[in-house]
Amino acid sequence: MLEKLKEEVYQANMMLPKHGLITLTWGNVSARDKETGYIVIKPSGVEYTNMKLEDMVVVDLEGNVIDGALNPSSDTPTHIELYQAYPDLGGIVHTHSRFATIFAQAGASIPALGTTHADYFYGSIPCTRKMTKREIKGSYEKETGSVIIDTFEEHNINPYQVPSVLVHSHGPFTWGSSAMKAVENAIVLEEVAQMAWHTLLLYQSNHMTTTCPSMQQDLLDKHYLRKHGPNSYYGQKRSE
Amino acid sequence: MLEKLKEEVYQANMMLPKHGLITLTWGNVSARDKETGYIVIKPSGVEYTNMKLEDMVVVDLEGNVIDGALNPSSDTPTHIELYQAYPDLGGIVHTHSRFATIFAQAGASIPALGTTHADYFYGSIPCTRKMTKREIKGSYEKETGSVIIDTFEEHNINPYQVPSVLVHSHGPFTWGSSAMKAVENAIVLEEVAQMAWHTLLLYQSNHMTTTCPSMQQDLLDKHYLRKHGPNSYYGQKRSE
Amino acid sequence: MLEKLKEEVYQANMMLPKHGLITLTWGNVSARDKETGYIVIKPSGVEYTNMKLEDMVVVDLEGNVIDGALNPSSDTPTHIELYQAYPDLGGIVHTHSRFATIFAQAGASIPALGTTHADYFYGSIPCTRKMTKREIKGSYEKETGSVIIDTFEEHNINPYQVPSVLVHSHGPFTWGSSAMKAVENAIVLEEVAQMAWHTLLLYQSNHMTTTCPSMQQDLLDKHYLRKHGPNSYYGQKRSE
Amino acid sequence: MLEKLKEEVYQANMMLPKHGLITLTWGNVSARDKETGYIVIKPSGVEYTNMKLEDMVVVDLEGNVIDGALNPSSDTPTHIELYQAYPDLGGIVHTHSRFATIFAQAGASIPALGTTHADYFYGSIPCTRKMTKREIKGSYEKETGSVIIDTFEEHNINPYQVPSVLVHSHGPFTWGSSAMKAVENAIVLEEVAQMAWHTLLLYQSNHMTTTCPSMQQDLLDKHYLRKHGPNSYYGQKRSE
Repeated sequence: MLEKLKEEVYQANMMLPKHGLITLTWGNVSARDKETGYIVIKPSGVEYTNMKLEDMVVVDLEGNVIDGALNPSSDTPTHIELYQAYPDLGGIVHTHSRFATIFAQAGASIPALGTTHADYFYGSIPCTRKMTKREIKGSYEKETGSVIIDTFEEHNINPYQVPSVLVHSHGPFTWGSSAMKAVENAIVLEEVAQMAWHTLLLYQSNHMTTTCPSMQQDLLDKHYLRKHGPNSYYGQKRSE
Repeated sequence: MLEKLKEEVYQANMMLPKHGLITLTWGNVSARDKETGYIVIKPSGVEYTNMKLEDMVVVDLEGNVIDGALNPSSDTPTHIELYQAYPDLGGIVHTHSRFATIFAQAGASIPALGTTHADYFYGSIPCTRKMTKREIKGSYEKETGSVIIDTFEEHNINPYQVPSVLVHSHGPFTWGSSAMKAVENAIVLEEVAQMAWHTLLLYQSNHMTTTCPSMQQDLLDKHYLRKHGPNSYYGQKRSE
Repeated sequence: MLEKLKEEVYQANMMLPKHGLITLTWGNVSARDKETGYIVIKPSGVEYTNMKLEDMVVVDLEGNVIDGALNPSSDTPTHIELYQAYPDLGGIVHTHSRFATIFAQAGASIPALGTTHADYFYGSIPCTRKMTKREIKGSYEKETGSVIIDTFEEHNINPYQVPSVLVHSHGPFTWGSSAMKAVENAIVLEEVAQMAWHTLLLYQSNHMTTTCPSMQQDLLDKHYLRKHGPNSYYGQKRSE
Repeated sequence: MLEKLKEEVYQANMMLPKHGLITLTWGNVSARDKETGYIVIKPSGVEYTNMKLEDMVVVDLEGNVIDGALNPSSDTPTHIELYQAYPDLGGIVHTHSRFATIFAQAGASIPALGTTHADYFYGSIPCTRKMTKREIKGSYEKETGSVIIDTFEEHNINPYQVPSVLVHSHGPFTWGSSAMKAVENAIVLEEVAQMAWHTLLLYQSNHMTTTCPSMQQDLLDKHYLRKHGPNSYYGQKRSE
């Protein structure tokens, strides 16, 4: 069942090691089928070099395995929380990609410091608060999703315009309208995080102050909106 | 039309991902035809892995598409501004290469700190001022070119001797007598930026002062002038 | 003799350069045969590109060569000390992998800063004290093992739960239930060290304080224990 | 003539880009023929991808081309100075390898911080003083050699035990008993420089002091002398 979506999720998973976002088995991609609402996701703890198309697991929104011989990713409950909260998400990616994880470990958001960031993320990429003892000892993976959702609500961030989050002391989740779009955002997130890390330290070295200011709001608007929404003009769109 | 120049621009574009200067579709190379004054440039938002020779777009100096089925790069007006201001430019490259972009995001010029820099750039590589709200909301890409030109005029820098600039909060533009020379300068810029970043932080760590001094002017002269101009003696030039 | 274990040790050694943990000939992997107690180890100073299966050396716990034409690794006495002190070790890896060595050179432990660390190491990865003049001038490689063992005893760390150590001014040793598990831990150690290095500097840049706090103990428990021990639920384990 | 030495110099040159020590045409390897005293060296400004065995140039100790159609490297006079001062050198390498160059640009020596360094270099790798205006405007490349020689004399360093130097604001020269040994030392230099850079910044971040102390002299002795000289015991030496 859902053979076409399994193929997309398999291909999207294989793009993670290809783009240097994965060490060993860390990370997973899922996608949602619009008709059934089922989720296709990577199996838990399987090596990317051995993974096959037929290893993909289909689960419903309660996490029951509908199709597949292997256990789904242990992060499946986090994915489900996000799909339930954000109805227009088509795909989700979780990695421990190096620089995004470094910001998560430092408990720091990634500020918008340039147009590379602005072309994909309409503002800072937030870091969640630490999870509580109760959340960690309870349904940990489900609570991880809840903390993400709380973060976007509290800071009044639109998750479709800032399609990524850093979970405190853990690492990034990224999403998009499809699994492939989510992977593209995960690639950009890592590059943007690496640039931000080095920009912050260079700025501090040059200025002896603690904080590099965010980019101008006008420039952020310009770059985000020339690529996204009804007035975009970047790329090869035929009509508008 | 302009098949030979299209081939050079295509090859020059393909050198960007080969040298690690490109993530996804970011970046573009153009060249100017000396006879017609037309410009050949990469199409907008096309993946490098799918790009073909025939996708190259020919535009005139008003930005009208003269030949080609795709939209030209959204940065075309910036290229045109530079070609109009600097009559001896044969090629221009724009990338978001990592360390050059990091300096641009920090709003910092790249000081000349060693002979690697001096062999290609006759002094600091300047960073522009921030663009104004009016410039951003107006003909943004054209204004980006104007701000570059202003930067070289204000600081009295010869753009043929310092063939690169960092646009504030954005990234580098690099140029040369041909598309291939511009790509070579873009490769060197990224290496020089990465070395400068680490030199500045090492110097500060060792000396607890804010600024690493620029290299000696005599050494800068020596290295730049042994490779460039009438008295150069580096390489395999047969006559002089 | 011990052909199957030689094959595993050979393959484990070859994984080190494949994962970027080795420059030139630096580093070695060994494994212990459960029945005989003999140790199979890489020969000393042989290039990885030329190394063959039959070059593996078999030694006993006094370091006598039992089988093999080449000298065993000069670090063999360190391996033997560890095998004797920790009866459940099946394999040991020594490398000069870049970021683990950087922490060793700075004389600094690697604090647990996130779940990537917690998934493999149940707490800080310790750095030994400096060796004394007597230890260095005596049976240096054997004493290196003793200093490692002392470090775990003094700080009351379980070497099976924190399967790695940094030898001061030298580099890491890593171990596991088999040679392959030890290599896996060595790969993770290097990634964790690189992330910790950048987390510490980012945190200091943001907060102007000296120390990034370790992660929460609850989260450390959660991640380590969901992958290790009787209540683990990560991966594809069929029974429990 | 000198076909065998040309082959070795050609192969040694080709190892530089293979080990990531070269950008574009920067860098060169030479070797000295023991019988004739002639030097075989890379031609000036030739791309590594196009270079052929027969492009190698033979020069005498006055720099006269004895054999070969191309100009020798513009750094040839520096090589000649070193060969004349140090009679036991068989090969010399010059690169702009990234982290060695970063130390040169900061005007900083590379302190011995760990056993990786001690295995190849018996103490700090010195950085020369800045060259004077007279030296730069005179026989610059020859004077570069003289400044290197002065540095070793003034600091009483044995160039056979510390086979590398950083030329201020420029980059490293490395040498050895043969071209291949010199390349090996150049590979190790770059790794050691990269580790030292990160060790210095980590130490400062942890301790808020300016300088990470050098390693213990006893440990430096132990590691250097177990690999070099009459009492060495590392590797596969058959007799002693």
